[in-house]
Amino acid sequence: MSMTFADPASLSPQELEDGDAFAPRFDAQGLVTAVTVEHGSGAVLMVAHMNAEALAATLETGIVHYWSRSRGKLWKKGETSGELQILVEMRTDCDQDVLLLRVEQQGHGAACHTGRRSCFYRRVEIAAGAAQLADAGEARLFDPAEVYKA
Amino acid sequence: MSMTFADPASLSPQELEDGDAFAPRFDAQGLVTAVTVEHGSGAVLMVAHMNAEALAATLETGIVHYWSRSRGKLWKKGETSGELQILVEMRTDCDQDVLLLRVEQQGHGAACHTGRRSCFYRRVEIAAGAAQLADAGEARLFDPAEVYKA
Repeated sequence: MSMTFADPASLSPQELEDGDAFAPRFDAQGLVTAVTVEHGSGAVLMVAHMNAEALAATLETGIVHYWSRSRGKLWKKGETSGELQILVEMRTDCDQDVLLLRVEQQGHGAACHTGRRSCFYRRVEIAAGAAQLADAGEARLFDPAEVYKA
Repeated sequence: MSMTFADPASLSPQELEDGDAFAPRFDAQGLVTAVTVEHGSGAVLMVAHMNAEALAATLETGIVHYWSRSRGKLWKKGETSGELQILVEMRTDCDQDVLLLRVEQQGHGAACHTGRRSCFYRRVEIAAGAAQLADAGEARLFDPAEVYKA
């Protein structure tokens, strides 16, 4: 990994917020949150995490890499499924602890491991004072049983 | 707080992913990540956190409440600035650890405390192998020095 990032501790709050130094505020686990939207529609596809290695790999290759918390390893999104994400634009927020990625979703156009375009395929609804989920009608674009078979 | 939520530990992975039980997976700090987009444009405005209290207050009142990690308290968004957020729709993701909120942004239409519509007002750019930030041209819709004066 050749690319390094500024240390947020070296910046004043104003420099962090207004400046041109990219100083991602990795948390105690070394991670920042990444929100990924579909180029074109702007639809939110998924939310995941990046460590410095995943962030550098993403910027250096133009192919989105996350850090898999469940597997504890670098995660080249779509390596198994073919659903790669090509980075179009990256932004950060005012206090630099979140990244916003705009991507061209490859393959079937499905970011979610369930085969849907977006992980946000269920709506929260209130009925009789209780919250429950309702399907929002997002079609499955691939069959996960086929794609992830051993 | 009258509204309660299902316990994700009581659900199988498949029930968590396919079912209609809303069982937000609060982390060790009791928080889930909330991504907030603007109704109409779908633009990502901000990313913040909710605990069970903030989530219940949001669903019960229709006005978005977060948990402020920096202040350690319930945060009715826009209470000081007037930039309230009216909830239009809430979704959750496949493993129920992120919420996606679609809101009508009130006031000047600025979700960011810097006075901009969105907190994501800077682009990450690569120049000579190093990453730095560039202003993406988001106008300030209010003057934070005026709005947050003591």
